Amino acid sequence: MLSSFTPGFTQIRVTALAGGVGGAKLAVGLQQILPPGALTVIVNTGDDFEHWGLHVCPDLDTVLYNLATINNPEMGWGRQEEKFTVLDEMDRYGGDQWFRIGDKDLALHLRRTEWMRQGVSLSEVTDRLRRMLGVPSTILPMCNEPVRTLVHTDEGDLPFQHYFVRRRCEPTLVDLSFLGAERAKLSNEIKRALDRADLVVFCPSNPYVSIDPILAVPGMRDRLCAIKAPKIGVSPIVSGQALKGPAAKMMRELGEMISPVTVVDHLGDLLDGFVIDAQDRDLCEAVILPTLTTDTIMVDLESKAELARAVVEFGLSLHANHMLSPIDQPSLQ
Amino acid sequence: MLSSFTPGFTQIRVTALAGGVGGAKLAVGLQQILPPGALTVIVNTGDDFEHWGLHVCPDLDTVLYNLATINNPEMGWGRQEEKFTVLDEMDRYGGDQWFRIGDKDLALHLRRTEWMRQGVSLSEVTDRLRRMLGVPSTILPMCNEPVRTLVHTDEGDLPFQHYFVRRRCEPTLVDLSFLGAERAKLSNEIKRALDRADLVVFCPSNPYVSIDPILAVPGMRDRLCAIKAPKIGVSPIVSGQALKGPAAKMMRELGEMISPVTVVDHLGDLLDGFVIDAQDRDLCEAVILPTLTTDTIMVDLESKAELARAVVEFGLSLHANHMLSPIDQPSLQ
Repeated sequence: MLSSFTPGFTQIRVTALAGGVGGAKLAVGLQQILPPGALTVIVNTGDDFEHWGLHVCPDLDTVLYNLATINNPEMGWGRQEEKFTVLDEMDRYGGDQWFRIGDKDLALHLRRTEWMRQGVSLSEVTDRLRRMLGVPSTILPMCNEPVRTLVHTDEGDLPFQHYFVRRRCEPTLVDLSFLGAERAKLSNEIKRALDRADLVVFCPSNPYVSIDPILAVPGMRDRLCAIKAPKIGVSPIVSGQALKGPAAKMMRELGEMISPVTVVDHLGDLLDGFVIDAQDRDLCEAVILPTLTTDTIMVDLESKAELARAVVEFGLSLHANHMLSPIDQPSLQ
Repeated sequence: MLSSFTPGFTQIRVTALAGGVGGAKLAVGLQQILPPGALTVIVNTGDDFEHWGLHVCPDLDTVLYNLATINNPEMGWGRQEEKFTVLDEMDRYGGDQWFRIGDKDLALHLRRTEWMRQGVSLSEVTDRLRRMLGVPSTILPMCNEPVRTLVHTDEGDLPFQHYFVRRRCEPTLVDLSFLGAERAKLSNEIKRALDRADLVVFCPSNPYVSIDPILAVPGMRDRLCAIKAPKIGVSPIVSGQALKGPAAKMMRELGEMISPVTVVDHLGDLLDGFVIDAQDRDLCEAVILPTLTTDTIMVDLESKAELARAVVEFGLSLHANHMLSPIDQPSLQ
């Protein structure tokens, strides 16, 4: 991968929180502008599930494939130049076909499942995979314990992938639960990634089903509040729409405005600054945080890097302010 | 599948013991000449193993694919018009590539493994699969418990597939063990298939690594001895060679003659009659059993059916003799 990191950023460590497509895009931009190894991405695993007897991690894989530049940009998930021979063949054996696992993608699920059945943690599995794919950034699952997002809808409770893929988000959202979250633990790798970060970025991911599961890991929220580094959010809502996925539909069904302001209100005291799209500059005044307005729509590597650069520079400017007005920090362990 | 069973065989139930390719070929012939459902094949599972975290049953699948006419006749294993996208992709992740699982084949392994992890027995899994593939014959794994063929060689002990595929049978055979056999149980399905059979056929499979593991299941040998139905063996050795696989090499390394006579001596008192190839008719006198000489080389459906017809007619002629001179039979449970 061509390294084109920005010289001024040589000392900067960035930790990003991400879900699927939107998060992965900004992570690619950050990886592009930072020195190799300077980026850590903490990824939602609430939408992991078992399919064909395999341990499937949709968000982890989207981030992994994007950072390895082997993702499929048209589909938004899975691999480039993918084939579906196994999926087609599954039809003979009554295997579920609503979740479309491609042949290349399948190799990764097989390997991960084999390792996990041998007792290797999801963190270690993920690290092996990213090294094998030549990804210089660290990718951390939000926890090693199983946490499963359950979508409460007007048609009953649905595991996330059933809501998201099988039912195409059609049922009306009532509420969300993150099953097993109370038993999850903040890993040492996550603690280190947060404590050593010069900047934390909340990627433009769905606040309810990508960011909230990460924040549901006990200790995650407190750790984020405690660290000195500025925390910057990037809006997943542009001009009253979600660029990808059901964030806007969910906001409407939860009785919220479809607006970056809703995201800021939702993440509340976790953020030190917020990035909204230039199309939404009228909303700046409604955001009760330092705000950067810029073009946030990422269509190619250049626009991903551009947004990443703007976010990092904005964050660093707040960092300077942080340094000028230090506040009491709880002790970290 | 075109049913072309021989009218005289409408009342006949045949149970065959089989390993891989040779056994599967004769099973196809038997299925062709018998009414639907009249054939049961008891299949070696000693060469089953775990690969890519999946439960792989090479002999069961060879029999299954052959009986479903979706086997690959050129390779002798796996599926027709197969692709290897997943296998190729495994290279990225350091997954073993010496055992070539194709994409279509993989769908079956995934489904079987998923069911077995849910607690479904191998017998039930196999029955589901053969129904889904439209196979009219019953296919029974020799047992539901794991039995693993271990090959003792001059280079140390090797699990069967490592000896057979990875090492291409190169090490010199010293001895064989069937790990776990003492804990295996004769299933009710196997008991029924033997007790109700009008004829038992030992297919032209390797006596050491295809037939012996089946006979290692406690009670199998006694049950076979006890039943009234005649038991016919078909030689896997023709003209001093094995038609497929390492049977001849194994005989040499064990200090035996490469001859149908060695097979008869090995299976000993289990057989009531033996079928040898017309090329070996000089050896008839050395065989201490009623013998049929015929063309045993199966190159197409017609020659498979021809051999099957000859074997069944030969068996029935012995059955008539059996009926004329009944011997005391131990009681069966």
